Amino acid sequence: MQKDAAASTGIRYIAPASAEALVAGILGQYGVPEPDVATTAHCLVRADLRGVDTHGITRMPGYLERLDLGLIDPAPQLEPERVAPAVARLDGKNGLGFVVASRAVDEALAIAEESGVGLVGVVNSTHFGMAANYLLQAAERGYASLIFTNASPAMPPWGGRAALIGTSPFGAGFPAGAGGVPFILDMSPAVAARGKIRRALREGRSIPEGWALDENGRPTTDPEAALRGVVMPMGGPKGSGLSMLMDILCGVFTGAAFAGEVGDQYKVFDRPQWVGHFMLAIRPDLFLAREAISARMDAFVDRMKANPLADGFDEVMIAGEPEARLEAQRLREGIPYRAADLLPLVQRYAATGRPLPDGFEGLA
Amino acid sequence: MQKDAAASTGIRYIAPASAEALVAGILGQYGVPEPDVATTAHCLVRADLRGVDTHGITRMPGYLERLDLGLIDPAPQLEPERVAPAVARLDGKNGLGFVVASRAVDEALAIAEESGVGLVGVVNSTHFGMAANYLLQAAERGYASLIFTNASPAMPPWGGRAALIGTSPFGAGFPAGAGGVPFILDMSPAVAARGKIRRALREGRSIPEGWALDENGRPTTDPEAALRGVVMPMGGPKGSGLSMLMDILCGVFTGAAFAGEVGDQYKVFDRPQWVGHFMLAIRPDLFLAREAISARMDAFVDRMKANPLADGFDEVMIAGEPEARLEAQRLREGIPYRAADLLPLVQRYAATGRPLPDGFEGLA
Repeated sequence: MQKDAAASTGIRYIAPASAEALVAGILGQYGVPEPDVATTAHCLVRADLRGVDTHGITRMPGYLERLDLGLIDPAPQLEPERVAPAVARLDGKNGLGFVVASRAVDEALAIAEESGVGLVGVVNSTHFGMAANYLLQAAERGYASLIFTNASPAMPPWGGRAALIGTSPFGAGFPAGAGGVPFILDMSPAVAARGKIRRALREGRSIPEGWALDENGRPTTDPEAALRGVVMPMGGPKGSGLSMLMDILCGVFTGAAFAGEVGDQYKVFDRPQWVGHFMLAIRPDLFLAREAISARMDAFVDRMKANPLADGFDEVMIAGEPEARLEAQRLREGIPYRAADLLPLVQRYAATGRPLPDGFEGLA
Repeated sequence: MQKDAAASTGIRYIAPASAEALVAGILGQYGVPEPDVATTAHCLVRADLRGVDTHGITRMPGYLERLDLGLIDPAPQLEPERVAPAVARLDGKNGLGFVVASRAVDEALAIAEESGVGLVGVVNSTHFGMAANYLLQAAERGYASLIFTNASPAMPPWGGRAALIGTSPFGAGFPAGAGGVPFILDMSPAVAARGKIRRALREGRSIPEGWALDENGRPTTDPEAALRGVVMPMGGPKGSGLSMLMDILCGVFTGAAFAGEVGDQYKVFDRPQWVGHFMLAIRPDLFLAREAISARMDAFVDRMKANPLADGFDEVMIAGEPEARLEAQRLREGIPYRAADLLPLVQRYAATGRPLPDGFEGLA
């Protein structure tokens, strides 16, 4: 008994390849083609590597439930169509958002290589997880990008009190210089992401005041009440304006759902989510050679780091740098998971009849 | 005496055409060609119409001083060069930022018409005033846009305490539906724009806590101390990240100054400002017909406005709507200016020897 209790409350350090193998083993049971399994596993595990565990593998049961219900198509045929010389449209056909978004970014990069800039508008997608995945996909191949999605109602527009707009991330990336990491800005327009409230609930913690209103429009510190209510936009009209922008560009403009129509993956089970994305890629060597851009990016970072420090800080970091450091550390040391969070996944994996990947022993 | 005192402390309501005529009369003395005079006057007066008086005509002496010193070229030859099928470069040749930015947006719109999306990178520009001018330029011609600029050091990166990054606006726009106004998001990444601190200083008011640090890195409510110090980014790392993004895309990427190199127009008088801009235009009918987009935009706005109201609000508005209403009102009623703020302009105008435009009588 004692061993079981320890197993379900303790922390397990799992190697990224093992975590990907666990995800892949599960997804393989759902008819997801092998390359798409790999893409999805990579996106989920990379979120955990970067400390964005609200978008990591422990969120899998939500996706699996929608696969079970036929609300996510495990194997859509994705065929981007060029609608203008520098723009393509991609119908995601209700595929896994990771797969649809990755395919859209590939297409945006290909267009940017030809035209300098490439835009892909995506309809009929689903929750794509951590936006930084797609910013990194572009940055690691040497491109700048803007990655936007819309999302299910979670936040009121400024002045309102009912959930209507999403806490969709604003995503922007730029390739690293020779000496650093890429600039990866992946930020929620909410004071705090809903995923953080879900985690507080799972972990039995209260949330800070100012994060959310309950279902009656009153401030609350109870994560359960907050999840029934709304999270608040950061900076009032600013966060509200950013979220509206995501919904206009990803929904109104592309032809996807908008203004409250995107289905919540945890609440709407009678239809697909109808998420839209807006993926813009830019070749960085349009005005200066790649070497010059790389040297300028290094100079940019150096000047940021040379800034005298404010009280309570050890260092100035660029956007994405804390996550890149955590990723490097976790690539060496493994990803810490709460054993209890792994149990539902290990149980699903058991149906494959194959031995568990390294690190998951004794959890089934 | 009493009349003079009233004249210099009272409010004058000036018709927009009169305000533009005043600006035009002054700029005409500096060798600025007539179409560029009209562009500049329009941009400055429109800021006042929309209540963004920190970027309106009372800011003219700063631009005139730089024209006097030869740091702004009154009549640059602007020639965008296509560097990729969907991308152009524009050397602003240290022209007035209003003129350079308007020309860049024209080019981005022309490219977007052909390619679906058009990007213009601008170097050697100067302060371009209110970003909404260029968002409106695109939106009123039926295009979506992202309008970014970098700016002189005004804010520390998150974790630092010395001014290094700009309070450059994040600008995004989308055309109006049939029944409304365009979506115009023009927001500073700072808790409050420096212009608001300058206005507080002019008006003898203190500023709220949390807006700024003094030159020793301590919080201050004194606008004079704040202008010697730094304003703070909104949402900590989020505002800092947005400002870094503006500087990377407008500076590092285009070839303009970056990371503290952009000259402050009020402090650096031994060289031009070397501002960079990033202007992206998008044809909105890439995925759906214009009529459908227009109807969807109307539906978007209607759904925002149908949201139940939070305490203390009368209405939900989209970004740019409060400014559009003020503009409509001021187009009818005139723009209220403090007479004292108009005096320096009226004195400059007097050198033309022409009669003052309507509304300025008795101020010279």
